[in-house]
Amino acid sequence: MTNKDEPVRPEARLPKGFSDISAGEIRATETMLGTIRQVFESYGFEPLDTPAIEFSDALGKFLPDQDRPNEGVFSFKDDDDQWLSLRYDLTAPLARYVAANYQNLPKPFRRYQAGPVWRNEKPGPGRFRQFTQFDADTVGASSVAADAELCMLAADTLDALGVERGQYVIKVNNRKVLDGVLEAIGLGGEANAAKRLKVLRAIDKFDRLGIEGVSALFGKGRKDESGDYTKGADLTPAQSKEVLNYLGGKFAVMGAGEGASGWNASFSAWKSIVGESESGQDGIEELIQMARLLWETGYRYEQISFDSSVVRGLEYYTGPVFEAELTAPIKDERGQPIRLGSVVSGGRYDGLVERFTGEKVPATGISIGVSRLLFGLQLLGKYKDSTPQGPVVVLVFQDQPIANYQKLVYRLRHPDDGGPPIRAEMYLGSGKIGAQTKYADKRGSPCVVIQGGDEKAKGQVQIKDLILGATLTSIKDRDEYLKKQAEAQFAVPESDLVEAVRGVLSRHKA
Amino acid sequence: MTNKDEPVRPEARLPKGFSDISAGEIRATETMLGTIRQVFESYGFEPLDTPAIEFSDALGKFLPDQDRPNEGVFSFKDDDDQWLSLRYDLTAPLARYVAANYQNLPKPFRRYQAGPVWRNEKPGPGRFRQFTQFDADTVGASSVAADAELCMLAADTLDALGVERGQYVIKVNNRKVLDGVLEAIGLGGEANAAKRLKVLRAIDKFDRLGIEGVSALFGKGRKDESGDYTKGADLTPAQSKEVLNYLGGKFAVMGAGEGASGWNASFSAWKSIVGESESGQDGIEELIQMARLLWETGYRYEQISFDSSVVRGLEYYTGPVFEAELTAPIKDERGQPIRLGSVVSGGRYDGLVERFTGEKVPATGISIGVSRLLFGLQLLGKYKDSTPQGPVVVLVFQDQPIANYQKLVYRLRHPDDGGPPIRAEMYLGSGKIGAQTKYADKRGSPCVVIQGGDEKAKGQVQIKDLILGATLTSIKDRDEYLKKQAEAQFAVPESDLVEAVRGVLSRHKA
Repeated sequence: MTNKDEPVRPEARLPKGFSDISAGEIRATETMLGTIRQVFESYGFEPLDTPAIEFSDALGKFLPDQDRPNEGVFSFKDDDDQWLSLRYDLTAPLARYVAANYQNLPKPFRRYQAGPVWRNEKPGPGRFRQFTQFDADTVGASSVAADAELCMLAADTLDALGVERGQYVIKVNNRKVLDGVLEAIGLGGEANAAKRLKVLRAIDKFDRLGIEGVSALFGKGRKDESGDYTKGADLTPAQSKEVLNYLGGKFAVMGAGEGASGWNASFSAWKSIVGESESGQDGIEELIQMARLLWETGYRYEQISFDSSVVRGLEYYTGPVFEAELTAPIKDERGQPIRLGSVVSGGRYDGLVERFTGEKVPATGISIGVSRLLFGLQLLGKYKDSTPQGPVVVLVFQDQPIANYQKLVYRLRHPDDGGPPIRAEMYLGSGKIGAQTKYADKRGSPCVVIQGGDEKAKGQVQIKDLILGATLTSIKDRDEYLKKQAEAQFAVPESDLVEAVRGVLSRHKA
Repeated sequence: MTNKDEPVRPEARLPKGFSDISAGEIRATETMLGTIRQVFESYGFEPLDTPAIEFSDALGKFLPDQDRPNEGVFSFKDDDDQWLSLRYDLTAPLARYVAANYQNLPKPFRRYQAGPVWRNEKPGPGRFRQFTQFDADTVGASSVAADAELCMLAADTLDALGVERGQYVIKVNNRKVLDGVLEAIGLGGEANAAKRLKVLRAIDKFDRLGIEGVSALFGKGRKDESGDYTKGADLTPAQSKEVLNYLGGKFAVMGAGEGASGWNASFSAWKSIVGESESGQDGIEELIQMARLLWETGYRYEQISFDSSVVRGLEYYTGPVFEAELTAPIKDERGQPIRLGSVVSGGRYDGLVERFTGEKVPATGISIGVSRLLFGLQLLGKYKDSTPQGPVVVLVFQDQPIANYQKLVYRLRHPDDGGPPIRAEMYLGSGKIGAQTKYADKRGSPCVVIQGGDEKAKGQVQIKDLILGATLTSIKDRDEYLKKQAEAQFAVPESDLVEAVRGVLSRHKA
C-alpha cells in the first residue's frame, strides 16, 4: 500500500563501484602521496593537472576492455552535440596536453599527475569505477635510459614507502620482443593486428588464468566462471607452442653477472626464439641496455628482473613495459594469501602524441594504483597512521552563557603560549553532559574541559583525561586508583587552561 | 582537397570551460589547501571523500540555475538505465552520506571535504565547468552557535592565509528574515513559493546588477547584455518597494556596542520591516545571538558584519547565510579594479537530509571557492610561491658511457652526507651540450654538472652555476669578472660532487 500523500524519497545510496573514503584512509593516502610526490620531485618531474572531462575523440579508445560491448568509458553529449568523456587514465590527457602545447614545453617534458580516473566497467569485489592514479611520464626521450629511469623511480618510491628489499619486484619486458616472436611465427603485418592484440590480452591474463587459460585463449577460446565466452586468437597448435615457449622465459637478469659480459648470455634464449625478426632483436638489445644501466647505477636483481609474461594490456605500448608487484607473502584478515596484482605499471608509447600531430613523439611513463598500493602497504604493516588526536571537547552546561565556552575554545585554538593551535571544539549538539562525554569518546578526544557554575564562580576549569580515565576501572589497588583518578580529572585556574590541556595531550602523544 | 589516405586526426583541444592547471598554480594551491586544512583540523573537523559520480535523484536539483533549460548538471545513464550525475557541489553528497550512515556517526557530525565539482553551465570568462571547493559542515546542530562558529572558521582561515584585517569581511544574514519580509507583504505560503524563489535569485544578483536590475527582476523582467530575457517575479510596485527598503539595511552590527545592550538596537530597522512575521522575528533573534557570540568571543566588526542583501542563490538554505568577500581594492594586471565576488559562502540547510529520511536533521556549512580565493590572494600579494628549485641537470656527452652520468644523478638523489635528496636528473633528450644547457635554463635549474672525457680522466666533475653565470655579462670590471666566472664554473673531484652542488644550491635559496 502506498500512501499517495507521502512524498517520494530518494534512497541514500551510491551506484555500484563507487565508495566513500573514510577519514583514516584519506589521511593514510595523503601521507603516502606526500612521500611519492617527494620522490617524483627529487627526480625532477613537475606537476600538471588536467580536467576530468575531455573530448571523447581526444582521449581515444585505449582501454584493455574496449572489445567488450560497453567500452569502459563514461561518455555523454555536450550541449553542442559533441561527445565528452571522463578520463579513464592520465596518459591520454597527457598526450592531448603535449600535442596542444608542444612548442612551449621543455624537451624532454617530465611531468607527474595524481588524480581520479573513471572506468565504466562491470564493478566487482575490489574493482572500482573511480580510483586514483599517480603517474610520471617523460615525453620526448627516445633513449631507453628514460625507461630505465622510470624503473629506478618505481624502486626508489617503494623504498621510500618502507617496502623492504625482497618485498617487491619490478618486472620488465619489451613489446618489441613479443612482436618479434609473433613475426617469427608468421603473425606480422597489418593484416594480423587484431590477432596480435588477442594474443597480447591473453598473455596479460597469465597471472590470473595460468598456462591452461592462456592456451585456450591462444586457440579457439575460453568460457569463464560466469559462463561468458571469450573468443580466442585462433593460433595453430605450433604457433601457440612457440609463444608459450617464449612465456617460459623468466629470469632475474640483474643477477646474471657483475659486469657487462653477463647480459648477452642471459637473453640468449629469447634471442633464439625471435629468430631473425628485426623488431625482436632490437627489443632484446634495448632490454640489455636497460639491464646494464640499472645494474651499473646500483639497482639489484631483487629489485628489478626481466619476465616475458609481462606485456601489459594496453594496445598503445610500443617498447619496454614494466610493472611492480609486492612479492612478500600477503595475507588477508583471515590469513588467506592474497594476490594483489601490480601496484605500479607502465611502458613506452611512442605513438600517442602522433595521433594528434602526425609527428612521432617518443614517450614513456609509469602509473601507480594508489588505493591498491595503500592496501598493500597496510597488509605489509607499512601503513603510516597520521591521524591526529581527536579534538579537545569543551562541554556545555545549558544554564551557563554559551559565549564562555566559545571563549575557552578560542583560547585553545589561538593559544597565547606561542605553541601550535590545539585541536578543540565546543559541543554543539543538544545532549546532556553524559551524552557530551560519549560524543567526545566517539571522536577520540584525549580530554574534555568542564566548567559548570561552581567552577566558573571559582575562576576554574576541570580537565578530564578520557584516555587515562578509561584505564581506572582496571586498577585494583586503592591508593594507586586514587592517585590515577586525581591525574585523570583535576581543576586548574582558567588562566592555566592551555598549559593544563597541553600537559594532558603530551601524555598521549604517539 | 582532402587526401583520403590521410588518417583523420583528432584536434588536441579542451572543451570550453575546462582548463589545465600549471605546475606553479598546483603548488600554490597545495600550499593554500594545506593551510586551510590545518585551520579546519584545529576546529575539530574530520576529512571525508565522496565519489564524483552519484545517482541523480540522490543529488537532487539544487543549483541556482535550475530554471535554465540545461539544468546545470552533467548527467548520463548507467548500463541499467538509472541516471547518474557528476556532483555539482559537496553539500548534496554530504546529505546522502549522512542519511546513509546516520546511526554510526558522532552527532554532531563535523566533516571537511575538498575536491572538484562540475557545472554544466554556459562557460564564460572566469567561469569554469570544473572547479574545486573546500567545504566544512556541521550536521546535527540546530544551535546558531554552529553557524557562528563557521563564520569564525572563515575569518580564522583568511587570517591564516595572510589576508589582513580590513582586507576581508564576512557578511551575515538570515533567510528567515527575508521570508519574514515576504510574508509581511503577502507572499507567504506554498502558493507563492515560485515567486519567492525569483525574488531570492534577483537579490542574489544585487552585487552585479545593482538596484535597477534587481527592481526589474522584481517586476516584469529584464533583458541582459546578451539579449536573453529573464522573466521577473511580478511583484506590485508597493511590494517591490518594501523589499528594496529592506535591502538598504547594511550595517556593521559588530561595532554597534561593546556589550549586549547594543545588539537589539542595531537590528530595530529590520524588526519593523518584518512586522509581525514570526519567521522574521525569529530570524532576527538568531542574528542577534550570533552577533553576541561572535563579539564576545573576540571577533570584530571589521571581520564580520550583517547585510540584508546577502541571501545566497541556493534554494535549500533555511536559516543564517554567510559569505566572505575580499574588500581590499583589488586590481588586475592593467590596474583596472576587479570585483572578485565571494570567496567563501554558506548557510544553514535543515532540510537536505530530511529529503532522504523524512526526519529533520539540522545542518550548516561553508564552502571555499578554491581558485577564486587563490586568485584573490595573488592579487593581494599573499601568494605563497612554493616552487622548489629546478632540478640539477647532469649533461650527457654522447661519447661517454651513459651509466657514468646516471651514477652521478643517483648520488645526488641519494646523497651520502645524510642530507635530503637533491632534485636532479640526467638529460634524456638527443640535443648537444648547448641544447642541454638551454633545457636546464628552461627548467630553472640552478646548476648543471659536466663531465666530458677530460674531466673523467682526471676524476673530476665541473659544476656550472647557471644563475650566477647569467649575471656575468653585466660585469664591467675585469678582475671582478674573472672572480665571478671562477665561482660560476669550477671543477671538483668526483667524490666532492654532493658537497659542491649543495654549495651552489645554498647560494640561490629563497
